[in-house]
Amino acid sequence: MSSSMITGGVGMVGRQLARMLLARGERVDILDVAPATKLPADIRDRVTLIHADLTNWAEIMHAVASNRPDTIYHIAALMPPNSERNHAASWEINVNGTMRVLEAARLFGVGTVVYSSTTATFASQLPEPVPNDHPQFPEMLYGVTKVCSERLGEYYYRRYGTNFRGVRFLSILGPGRVPGSGWSAYTSLVIEECAKGNPYVIKVDEDLRLRFIYVKDAALSLMKLADAEEGQLTTRMYNLDGFSASTRELVDGVLAHVPDAQITWEFDPEYQHVMDTRYGVIQHRMDDTLAVQDWNWQTSFTREEAIGDFIKDVRQGRT
Amino acid sequence: MSSSMITGGVGMVGRQLARMLLARGERVDILDVAPATKLPADIRDRVTLIHADLTNWAEIMHAVASNRPDTIYHIAALMPPNSERNHAASWEINVNGTMRVLEAARLFGVGTVVYSSTTATFASQLPEPVPNDHPQFPEMLYGVTKVCSERLGEYYYRRYGTNFRGVRFLSILGPGRVPGSGWSAYTSLVIEECAKGNPYVIKVDEDLRLRFIYVKDAALSLMKLADAEEGQLTTRMYNLDGFSASTRELVDGVLAHVPDAQITWEFDPEYQHVMDTRYGVIQHRMDDTLAVQDWNWQTSFTREEAIGDFIKDVRQGRT
Amino acid sequence: MSSSMITGGVGMVGRQLARMLLARGERVDILDVAPATKLPADIRDRVTLIHADLTNWAEIMHAVASNRPDTIYHIAALMPPNSERNHAASWEINVNGTMRVLEAARLFGVGTVVYSSTTATFASQLPEPVPNDHPQFPEMLYGVTKVCSERLGEYYYRRYGTNFRGVRFLSILGPGRVPGSGWSAYTSLVIEECAKGNPYVIKVDEDLRLRFIYVKDAALSLMKLADAEEGQLTTRMYNLDGFSASTRELVDGVLAHVPDAQITWEFDPEYQHVMDTRYGVIQHRMDDTLAVQDWNWQTSFTREEAIGDFIKDVRQGRT
Amino acid sequence: MSSSMITGGVGMVGRQLARMLLARGERVDILDVAPATKLPADIRDRVTLIHADLTNWAEIMHAVASNRPDTIYHIAALMPPNSERNHAASWEINVNGTMRVLEAARLFGVGTVVYSSTTATFASQLPEPVPNDHPQFPEMLYGVTKVCSERLGEYYYRRYGTNFRGVRFLSILGPGRVPGSGWSAYTSLVIEECAKGNPYVIKVDEDLRLRFIYVKDAALSLMKLADAEEGQLTTRMYNLDGFSASTRELVDGVLAHVPDAQITWEFDPEYQHVMDTRYGVIQHRMDDTLAVQDWNWQTSFTREEAIGDFIKDVRQGRT
Repeated sequence: MSSSMITGGVGMVGRQLARMLLARGERVDILDVAPATKLPADIRDRVTLIHADLTNWAEIMHAVASNRPDTIYHIAALMPPNSERNHAASWEINVNGTMRVLEAARLFGVGTVVYSSTTATFASQLPEPVPNDHPQFPEMLYGVTKVCSERLGEYYYRRYGTNFRGVRFLSILGPGRVPGSGWSAYTSLVIEECAKGNPYVIKVDEDLRLRFIYVKDAALSLMKLADAEEGQLTTRMYNLDGFSASTRELVDGVLAHVPDAQITWEFDPEYQHVMDTRYGVIQHRMDDTLAVQDWNWQTSFTREEAIGDFIKDVRQGRT
Repeated sequence: MSSSMITGGVGMVGRQLARMLLARGERVDILDVAPATKLPADIRDRVTLIHADLTNWAEIMHAVASNRPDTIYHIAALMPPNSERNHAASWEINVNGTMRVLEAARLFGVGTVVYSSTTATFASQLPEPVPNDHPQFPEMLYGVTKVCSERLGEYYYRRYGTNFRGVRFLSILGPGRVPGSGWSAYTSLVIEECAKGNPYVIKVDEDLRLRFIYVKDAALSLMKLADAEEGQLTTRMYNLDGFSASTRELVDGVLAHVPDAQITWEFDPEYQHVMDTRYGVIQHRMDDTLAVQDWNWQTSFTREEAIGDFIKDVRQGRT
Repeated sequence: MSSSMITGGVGMVGRQLARMLLARGERVDILDVAPATKLPADIRDRVTLIHADLTNWAEIMHAVASNRPDTIYHIAALMPPNSERNHAASWEINVNGTMRVLEAARLFGVGTVVYSSTTATFASQLPEPVPNDHPQFPEMLYGVTKVCSERLGEYYYRRYGTNFRGVRFLSILGPGRVPGSGWSAYTSLVIEECAKGNPYVIKVDEDLRLRFIYVKDAALSLMKLADAEEGQLTTRMYNLDGFSASTRELVDGVLAHVPDAQITWEFDPEYQHVMDTRYGVIQHRMDDTLAVQDWNWQTSFTREEAIGDFIKDVRQGRT
Repeated sequence: MSSSMITGGVGMVGRQLARMLLARGERVDILDVAPATKLPADIRDRVTLIHADLTNWAEIMHAVASNRPDTIYHIAALMPPNSERNHAASWEINVNGTMRVLEAARLFGVGTVVYSSTTATFASQLPEPVPNDHPQFPEMLYGVTKVCSERLGEYYYRRYGTNFRGVRFLSILGPGRVPGSGWSAYTSLVIEECAKGNPYVIKVDEDLRLRFIYVKDAALSLMKLADAEEGQLTTRMYNLDGFSASTRELVDGVLAHVPDAQITWEFDPEYQHVMDTRYGVIQHRMDDTLAVQDWNWQTSFTREEAIGDFIKDVRQGRT
């Protein structure tokens, strides 16, 4: 039986990935600082939760030494806006945390480390689509920490043979976002809140057009990349793309499933400004040709399907 | 009186910079792990040597708190091949060391942090000349640690207003290299050894053509960048270029000053291979247009002048 | 106006101390990893909550640099049984955390650091009463981390003049304990749960006799020690004592205020064994002569008064 | 074949221990930051020198993982007066360094960790002889770091079964001391310098009486303690004692072997004061009863024999 460790596995992508790995019979260890009560009920008793902190060498070494996974999916990170509020914590968790994971993998012979990076490693002014090897000058510390981690992982691959591979996610659409937990909290939130019957206020323009990947596609991409044949890979870090949606289209998608959703429009120029600058990168299409060519990547969910599935899961309490 | 702190100031670039800053009346603090006996006699009593280790938070905080420089020139780093032999030490010194310096600068109100990066942040396969914002996929960990530091410094500039600025050096020609201390040790060494009357064996092809910057130009560039008007800067990190020299041209340059130099040619394909791959980047011309435009950068030493000055300094014991 | 920083100020002792300091007009900064929602309502808007982690150098430096308190009350620690479950975290928080606090105090000129240690720094086999300078061979890692911190604080006092002073608490009786948060959780919990009208099961012998200090006396001792005249102090670390109570006496005390308390006795030899060994130290009387002589220490609450006050506060929601 | 790792094995005690272990057929790995050139010629090619820094988690983990010794002799430490000059480095090397060694031993299944502590863990005012479990309130940070390490090692023994054992050395007499490398540098130095034919100036009173252990006895005690049967041990940390010598007796001992030694007496009250206060502890006899009872400890060298052997080794260049 294969075994996988998912850092940050309690989070929105990690738990979806855990479900997929369990479904195909893998042993799944989740390394997280969150308590067991935060794990979804359907997987709580089927995974091993290891309480460990990426900032602590001894904890990470012990976790990997005791569990000896075949593959580590390294997803845990401090995300915006928290990553920008506490730069010292971001640095320790996101950058040195990756160093600790890679070093533990090396010392204890873990075969593969799959890494989740971000398109926020690119600046806001970008060509269309953004090439896989475009220069990476991130706006936010979050992106900085991910660039550092990408380069370090590539080094471990070249120097020590650690099978480091990763993807760059654009904005992830899915349940479980909290205000402050990520870029486009507000976009995912309109879906989640309306699915729950709560009112929601939208503060950006209805024409603002962003690009998203559905959370189940995000999780799927990590598993598919882990499975890809080494000989087919032409790089270690792969841009992913997804679907485009304007705010209006998201709202229409919600209304199709929740006709009585209480959505109010209150344009706030400050919000719009933030979306146009700091989060400008997610207005751009990514060139995911290499992912398509090297490991046959394609998403499973269109915009409409993603919204529908999202709402269904929220209503069934399976987030 | 202005005051400057030079991390790694005992090293080959740092000591030249110290001389220049002293010459114009600045107070100079040198932060290094090397003992005072390694400082050149002509500056030993004119600077303050602070024994502190970049891997230790408390030491760096204390050093900056006690001395409160106006400017920190952050030059200290573990260099190849040592940086490649001990990746864990490289990471702590080069990456987290830069974090500590930036954080100390922020907490204690240091106005400017000038950083010495490297063209080894670029891969070996490159366009000619290499644009200032070319994608950075370094071969060596040394380059990885410098990419991480560049991005982090830029973030401090944007987020905290720390006046971070830096240059990317190509191979530095100058006295004080030891085997193992840097890329092109062997090229500088042929000059230094012959100036001392020692024999020297060259193991690469006479047609191998690299690009260099003379150590005094390297030091000068840091001082000029520190002095540049903020309003003129269009980026935070500047490519520098220098002069081109084939091995044959270097040897001819030496012979012009040391006619009886004992130079032997023993071609070793392994050495040549390393120079063509790992150090391939220094076979490329850098596009330094931005440095020229933004702060009027130009080198002071041609190839011939650099070799002559180098030999003179070695003979006078002023290295 | 004097200003104080309380590390771990959201906790059960820290919040009582915050109230006392506010009551006499001090500015109070609380450094904690807990969110603002965990602060009691009556002090939430009257203190500054600084979210910082003792394991992170830059966060502690920044917190002290930005707030420049006159006095730091360093109370934060990982406590048993958590401290025993994760030794690596205990070490970073309790030992190196104290180092970071002391170093920040030194660098930023904080006058006084008051430290809360524990009688768990002593072994289980002890003379009666336990002398102030009895050899310290703790059973638990918790005690180990506190011994290390005591010695380090004393060194800062001797070497750098940091006015380090501290007390050793025995078991603290007071609201806010959670199972797993400290030694005698079960003893405090019987009071708290019954005050709330919840049932409670006691698993140790009714004759088990421990010694306690009431949480308000614990907080008071820190403030009084901070106020003590330097010239009067004959040591840096002071044993404190308190009152004695058997399980039966605690229960009787509860019943006096909560006649219908639902208390069940279910003797569990394992619990009893733990109390006799690991927590054996709190069965012993401490010699607090030095605290009495040097700074006139005396407790304000007898056993009966402590239980009554405790129940009243729980009922009024002022914990 | 048994295998041992000696941290700080390049130092004066470590190299003697290495010789003893090699002599009985063990594999010896030396972990040190010193270069191979500092190793004595007679053992340089018979041991494996691992260049690793106790301040770096990854380096220590890697060293232990790669070499898997049966026993680690953890001797490396920053010593007085350097330990007092740089408290931050002392703390990282001596305290957290021990944590890293213990953790690596635990993770990689090293059976035994033998630790070298110091009688400087005791204060200057002491009973005669000093009991094995006397309260430890050290004057110097060096002693503080050793107390912390002792308590932590004992915890690993109780909690994780790591076979931690150690001795407390008084002043070690032997070649290889450098000014600044330890307490009684001056006492060892008078012997070493005179053996080399160099002049020496003594600055303390001729009646100053200290207690010493000869370096070969120090090394021997570590090996004997490692060999001791677990069932015989009644504690984890053992006081050692040695011989007494006044300054006059040391000088007479030197003159017996080096009749023309150039020794000058220049009493300096400052030196004498330091010896009476900071180093006061080494004027006291230690109670080593437990070491004698539990593992039959006895020294092999009297004062006269130690001085003679010391001089012989210096003259033969075997230090």
